[in-house]
Amino acid sequence: MTQLFVRTLRQDPADAEVPSHRWLVRAGYIRRAAPGIYSWLPLGLRVLQKVEAIVREEMNAMGAQEVLFPALLPKEPYEATNRWTEYGQNLFRLTDRRGTDMLLGPTHEEMFTLLVKDLYSSYKDLPLSIYQIQNKYRDEARPRAGILRGREFVMKDSYSFDVDDAGLEVSYQQHRATYIRIFDRLGFRYVIVQADAGAMGGSRSEEFLVIAENGEDTFVMSPAGYAANVEAVRTPTPEALNPDEAPDSHVEDTPDSPTIATLVARANENFARPDRDWDAADTLKNVAFMLTHPDGSTEALAIGLPGDREVDTKRLEVAAAPAEATPFTEEDFAKFPDLVKGYIGPQRLGEDSPSGVRFLTDPRVVTGTRWITGANEPGRHVFDLVAGRDFTADGIIDVAEVRNGDQAPDGSGPLTLQRGIEMGHIFQLGRKYAEALGLKVLDANGKQVTVTMGSYGIGVSRAVAAVAETTADAKGLCWPKQLAPFEVHVVAAGKDQMVLAKAEELAEGLADAGVEVLLDDRKASPGVKFADSEILGMPTVVVVGRGLADGLIEVRDRRTGESHQVPVDQALTLILGVARD
Amino acid sequence: MTQLFVRTLRQDPADAEVPSHRWLVRAGYIRRAAPGIYSWLPLGLRVLQKVEAIVREEMNAMGAQEVLFPALLPKEPYEATNRWTEYGQNLFRLTDRRGTDMLLGPTHEEMFTLLVKDLYSSYKDLPLSIYQIQNKYRDEARPRAGILRGREFVMKDSYSFDVDDAGLEVSYQQHRATYIRIFDRLGFRYVIVQADAGAMGGSRSEEFLVIAENGEDTFVMSPAGYAANVEAVRTPTPEALNPDEAPDSHVEDTPDSPTIATLVARANENFARPDRDWDAADTLKNVAFMLTHPDGSTEALAIGLPGDREVDTKRLEVAAAPAEATPFTEEDFAKFPDLVKGYIGPQRLGEDSPSGVRFLTDPRVVTGTRWITGANEPGRHVFDLVAGRDFTADGIIDVAEVRNGDQAPDGSGPLTLQRGIEMGHIFQLGRKYAEALGLKVLDANGKQVTVTMGSYGIGVSRAVAAVAETTADAKGLCWPKQLAPFEVHVVAAGKDQMVLAKAEELAEGLADAGVEVLLDDRKASPGVKFADSEILGMPTVVVVGRGLADGLIEVRDRRTGESHQVPVDQALTLILGVARD
Repeated sequence: MTQLFVRTLRQDPADAEVPSHRWLVRAGYIRRAAPGIYSWLPLGLRVLQKVEAIVREEMNAMGAQEVLFPALLPKEPYEATNRWTEYGQNLFRLTDRRGTDMLLGPTHEEMFTLLVKDLYSSYKDLPLSIYQIQNKYRDEARPRAGILRGREFVMKDSYSFDVDDAGLEVSYQQHRATYIRIFDRLGFRYVIVQADAGAMGGSRSEEFLVIAENGEDTFVMSPAGYAANVEAVRTPTPEALNPDEAPDSHVEDTPDSPTIATLVARANENFARPDRDWDAADTLKNVAFMLTHPDGSTEALAIGLPGDREVDTKRLEVAAAPAEATPFTEEDFAKFPDLVKGYIGPQRLGEDSPSGVRFLTDPRVVTGTRWITGANEPGRHVFDLVAGRDFTADGIIDVAEVRNGDQAPDGSGPLTLQRGIEMGHIFQLGRKYAEALGLKVLDANGKQVTVTMGSYGIGVSRAVAAVAETTADAKGLCWPKQLAPFEVHVVAAGKDQMVLAKAEELAEGLADAGVEVLLDDRKASPGVKFADSEILGMPTVVVVGRGLADGLIEVRDRRTGESHQVPVDQALTLILGVARD
Repeated sequence: MTQLFVRTLRQDPADAEVPSHRWLVRAGYIRRAAPGIYSWLPLGLRVLQKVEAIVREEMNAMGAQEVLFPALLPKEPYEATNRWTEYGQNLFRLTDRRGTDMLLGPTHEEMFTLLVKDLYSSYKDLPLSIYQIQNKYRDEARPRAGILRGREFVMKDSYSFDVDDAGLEVSYQQHRATYIRIFDRLGFRYVIVQADAGAMGGSRSEEFLVIAENGEDTFVMSPAGYAANVEAVRTPTPEALNPDEAPDSHVEDTPDSPTIATLVARANENFARPDRDWDAADTLKNVAFMLTHPDGSTEALAIGLPGDREVDTKRLEVAAAPAEATPFTEEDFAKFPDLVKGYIGPQRLGEDSPSGVRFLTDPRVVTGTRWITGANEPGRHVFDLVAGRDFTADGIIDVAEVRNGDQAPDGSGPLTLQRGIEMGHIFQLGRKYAEALGLKVLDANGKQVTVTMGSYGIGVSRAVAAVAETTADAKGLCWPKQLAPFEVHVVAAGKDQMVLAKAEELAEGLADAGVEVLLDDRKASPGVKFADSEILGMPTVVVVGRGLADGLIEVRDRRTGESHQVPVDQALTLILGVARD
């Protein structure tokens, strides 16, 4: 500790919102260099390198081969796939001294595709899985939570190349199994969730989410084990009803009812329903958004959903991508006078309607459902407006909020919601990139076939944060043995020269036995040293202090706080046993 | 080889000028992604990682601590030191989505300085040496020779922090010793040369140059062991002469004498010297340059040097930095009518002269030396113009070409010139960065003192190229054991099933014994396989082929070409012996 380049801080950094960010900075593992951009100090780098080593070992064990691409990339391949444009503001772009456009790679699909095209030409060369562990760059709108969501970060990204779909499925499953081994070794509590509800409920895309209160992602689980990112949840479609059973629609005065709550109250007051009260789910809320496409063009979109639900921003983000959706502003309403703010109704929506505004509805809005909804004039609503009879949407959009207790798509009962950190993503890319960049090989019949690809990512620097996030306690970091910068932290607690001598002897003995050991040999008070040992978070803390006079040394478990007094002459053997446990 | 992601090429890449570039591409170790930007294939990456491991081991062994900075950096620290401007076009600059200026780090002095300032505050914290192995970016005007001079490259850069000059000297010498160990382990033939002739002939800055014909750097050595980069050679200053011993200057007609050769011929013809012939060294050549400063401003500079020497572009580049010097164009001459092209004389040069053009002279132009030089009018030269009597320069500039046979500054005799590749640079930075960024610590007396720093670099990716450059032969790459991607290359040469089976058995046996082994199990002809084994360059090649029928296996040394027939049953033991030699 007298040599180690580290300083612990007594205060939380001002911008730290989550435990991992707070403790990694306070414990001197990382330092902010710019928004979303961090430097790694020696302790942090040791953890990062241990994560990298585990990822590398398991990737090599599955037969994937390591390569390394530049981070600074030419524009052309990204133009060929349109990602130069689609990435929008998330891409760091720059111009070199000759005026050539370049970018900092956000992911490397294009480069991998072109490299395989450069080297390979026959089905005999496949399957192939190649990967890299490398810096990635994304100009996040809101970098947050330290290294959990940064603008420069370390990723392991790999890509599989197969001649046919069956091969891709095998490569995908191999990656999936490897990811399970990696996440097990990292010690995560995690779930594998559907990231994209494939056509057949299949597994075209899955995410590995580490369960964490402060995670940015929300996922659902069903009683029968269905698990999905909320972004990917498919809302079950109710059966259609007979439109003829509903009364004709009728427009009513509903003064002072601009919100769903006031509307429901007004409906129950003035237009009471005989069988039961109206509730928010009887109303159809139509929300107007402006889509901004990557090329800068804009397009209006109205979304109709039951009034008891909000549009989920993240689900909409995924559904709208690569466009960005923002709620209508006053200026937007001014441009579309057909849309009356607070009273928008489907009668004037749809591509074929007078407004021409694209209109998509929630999956619950099936044929025959009847709604109270806006009448397109202030202070008036229409009742008994029936889907499929009185209005038709341009299509379905599944972006309403998902709630605890919603019925699971697998029919097994209510969904439960939890939060998680996305740590891995495996994805059957298919032929998109191979087609755009012309990656073909000769098949067994001598015919050119387009290669099919998988894409697989792990957030390596994010993993450091995720481990910290899910293991830190009220006193500081708390590393699992396999990732701790040092396995044992020996604290010389006391001014007695014997104390330091014995602590040094123990530390040397441990180091000689191959244990990574940190010795606190500073001239600080025992209190300062204990506090630092808790902030720094090595799994085993050995205290050489007052007990030494009685021939005793203390061995503490950082996580449980359990502590044992151990006779000095047995200390080395016992600590080795704990460290190697 | 049936699995390995590699393809050898029969043809040299079109842009390859040097062997390392040619062979690394042909052997499938690297691929060009953009000008000066390369991807690493599995074989190349294995070499790169081995170099990294050696560098890391030795840096750790000297007690330096590893950290890792971002490559994408904020502008402010580089503005504080003026490098944001001084780097000129060599810096990759970009703007993020908020319009904030950023850069890709060319070196990290500023970031290291600020990090130490952030963490440390006392002399007790020092000395400190910290390092990183990381991607660097320089927008080279002429990226060349593959990864020898790229625009994205891997460097180890370290920095030492000391409270005083004596401490800096210790840190510097520790780095120097570590570099010697690293370069020895990498197997280089190298010299340590002065990169900057320090005030006292000291070693403020030294370069580690790998001796290589195609190296970009030229260095000199004296019989007594003085070694310096030509950029740093100090030309010995002759003793001053008595100006009064020279005759008065006199202007003469010298028609058709615009070059030194024609001038010398004219002088010998029309103005013969009694004691000996005139030669080029009797003429003073005045060359005009335009300096462009990093802020875009320009300044004229005239350099006076003996007519038998040219201005050395690289020496001038170093002397002029951060300004860039370009020879006067016709437009420049038009702007300075005092300077008559081909007939420039010192009478009209100097900051106090009518032209105002700064005038610097070669160290050989000492007081009392007499010259034939331009008379500032076409077709006329002045004879017996004496330095210190008839003209005075604004200062000295030591940028004339250095030649084989020039007298060494250490007085030990003639210099010899050789070429090399700059692989390492150690440099006593002093307090420049600490002052600019306010890095101070309390000294033992409780006084704030500015920290003094050293800066130390090794080109890690360049080392891969330098090894290839200095070891490749006419047949391909030729790796030393400690850096080869695989130690042993087993070639199954022949269609017989027994051949492949025995080759596999041998490869497995070697792998089990911990040897890194590459097995050529392809269905290719022995000729193709032999050629590939020579291109790929593993140090030991084991051929299982025709000899197998007689119970023999061939063991070849890739470098020497020596080959032995070895009995099958002794093969494993013998190869292990060779590989572990």
